[in-house]
Amino acid sequence: MAKQPETVRFAIMGCADIARKLARAIALAPNATLSAVASRSLQKAQTFAAQNALPDTVSLYGSYHELLDDPSVDAVYLPLPTSLHVQWAVAAASRRKHVLLEKPGALNTADLDRILEACESNGVQFMDGSMWLHHPRTSHMHQLLSLSHSGSIGNIQFIHSTSTMHTTPGFLESNIRVKAELDALGALGDLAWYCIGASLWAKSYQLPATVIALPDVTRNAAGVILSITASLHWDQPNQTEAIIHCSFLSHTSMDLAISASNGSLHVKDFIIPFREDIASFDFTFGAKFVDLHIGWNVKPEQVNVPNLLPQEALMVQHFATLVAGIRDCASSPDNKWPEITRKTQVVVDAVNKSLDLGCKPVFLWNE
Amino acid sequence: MAKQPETVRFAIMGCADIARKLARAIALAPNATLSAVASRSLQKAQTFAAQNALPDTVSLYGSYHELLDDPSVDAVYLPLPTSLHVQWAVAAASRRKHVLLEKPGALNTADLDRILEACESNGVQFMDGSMWLHHPRTSHMHQLLSLSHSGSIGNIQFIHSTSTMHTTPGFLESNIRVKAELDALGALGDLAWYCIGASLWAKSYQLPATVIALPDVTRNAAGVILSITASLHWDQPNQTEAIIHCSFLSHTSMDLAISASNGSLHVKDFIIPFREDIASFDFTFGAKFVDLHIGWNVKPEQVNVPNLLPQEALMVQHFATLVAGIRDCASSPDNKWPEITRKTQVVVDAVNKSLDLGCKPVFLWNE
Repeated sequence: MAKQPETVRFAIMGCADIARKLARAIALAPNATLSAVASRSLQKAQTFAAQNALPDTVSLYGSYHELLDDPSVDAVYLPLPTSLHVQWAVAAASRRKHVLLEKPGALNTADLDRILEACESNGVQFMDGSMWLHHPRTSHMHQLLSLSHSGSIGNIQFIHSTSTMHTTPGFLESNIRVKAELDALGALGDLAWYCIGASLWAKSYQLPATVIALPDVTRNAAGVILSITASLHWDQPNQTEAIIHCSFLSHTSMDLAISASNGSLHVKDFIIPFREDIASFDFTFGAKFVDLHIGWNVKPEQVNVPNLLPQEALMVQHFATLVAGIRDCASSPDNKWPEITRKTQVVVDAVNKSLDLGCKPVFLWNE
Repeated sequence: MAKQPETVRFAIMGCADIARKLARAIALAPNATLSAVASRSLQKAQTFAAQNALPDTVSLYGSYHELLDDPSVDAVYLPLPTSLHVQWAVAAASRRKHVLLEKPGALNTADLDRILEACESNGVQFMDGSMWLHHPRTSHMHQLLSLSHSGSIGNIQFIHSTSTMHTTPGFLESNIRVKAELDALGALGDLAWYCIGASLWAKSYQLPATVIALPDVTRNAAGVILSITASLHWDQPNQTEAIIHCSFLSHTSMDLAISASNGSLHVKDFIIPFREDIASFDFTFGAKFVDLHIGWNVKPEQVNVPNLLPQEALMVQHFATLVAGIRDCASSPDNKWPEITRKTQVVVDAVNKSLDLGCKPVFLWNE
């Protein structure tokens, strides 16, 4: 695709599987280009370049430090294991590289704060890799949730969301995401990040007052969470309850159902849409029973939202727009994105703390 | 409709709104006929008969006792407020009338047991008014859940269900279902009955080991529950967690989502289908992401299940078949139905107890 003059030069630090998806997204985004890839060994970087048919113009590095020394790199995408986020995100920010960090942000809020402080003090943009936030379906749904005139769906009463995937025995044995030394949060970091994020998104990023883990947590022998259910509670006047359920042991699901006073909204694929070019959600407004309660007066309406670019390319495009603004026009970084990440991390921490306390409520009102 | 020789003669005790639906269902069921209606006053019974265009052959009574003295009545349908269930269901059973009792069964299990004991000792059939159990969609879904060969969806990991309706200020002021002296269980009896029933149904009526109410309960000034969320937990080896959410304060919803190891099932209208003649559910089996995780290999399949009779007529038909068997062929009552009701009531009690204990877990393993 022909690139625009404000093109932002990305580097990928780490050749995890998901980096393949982002390499493609960078190629698709009109204002981004991939200029470098680094792995812990040059050979890995070369293999990645070959597998993804990267052009010769992409510099390949056998160390992350070398990559960060490259002055032609504006921004880095970090798909590294969570335990390495602080070290390398801080290192990148310190070299004035803008940071697109794969979720979860960090192992805990204290670690995340080190990253966010490094980004802030170096004037670089931060964003986490919650791609679904960049799909036009997401903003379409948020408009419906935010209507304040007579068509309003009213106060959100209940949010249900799941992020589950049935993994293989091999995954449960050896995947990074279930290794205590690499991704100690397990399903809470990898999957619940989406459900917590969706709950906060629906509540316009108001933090819940109370977080409670439910007792059915499943852990592997190393103590890493494989499945988790938790509830988030927002107090009056806009009382809401959210249930999140995440599991590496259950069939693939990405349900998001939002129930408000006057309407409801259902999505079955909120994290990764079934298809790349269009996504849908079901919307029901003002449903009542017909006489004798033998049916409904309305059925859910399926709303289809096409997208010209895949959501990860839209994420890259939006991130690159912010970066170009900072680089070329002396704009300030957009604080919305680190704030979203931090609030998500705060709730992740609260779920973890509730688990540690034997599923007792954790109160966040001092946050 | 031409009635079959084994026609069972029903009486309706109480002229609540829902009795209109059942009067129609009795008319539609091929093996049932409405032979009497009683209210607390003859005038109310007459008004009900006129409003529902009941034929002159239907006897009208101004007292429930008179109705129970009518030897031409085989079975009674009781849509009375819950607080009156014990008195009148026991009275009916004692007169050897078969009992079709509107849900919830009773205010608590002890009360319900008095009803079930009266039915058992008098050899009459008992069934509660959970109509959705009689829809062919329900058995279709259960077959999918029960498959044990290679097409099995595996162990059920998570069940999500809601039963919500946005009521009017008038309802919240004066409806029977929010009056402490009439339906003291409020939304827990009226709405959660369905969600608890659906969770037990999905688990083939194995009782959960643990029940926990979540803290977001809303009550009216009289202490009647207006909204409630709770979790049910089944232990290993077939560990399952169910979340139920019920509210008189939220938009109409009747979601049932069942997530198993290899497949999932979604329904948006499990209690009252959108339409009377056909109902559907979504089924997803073996979903995986396509390469690069940019979509799914399968989308949910919509399964449509037509029904010749509405679900409440199918309920009446099934109940009448059991009654005719007892009346004409010396069959025994089918214990499945009182057992379903009792287990549902036990879980209702456990949710209530958890609320009383400040949302502490209630353990049912001694049940």
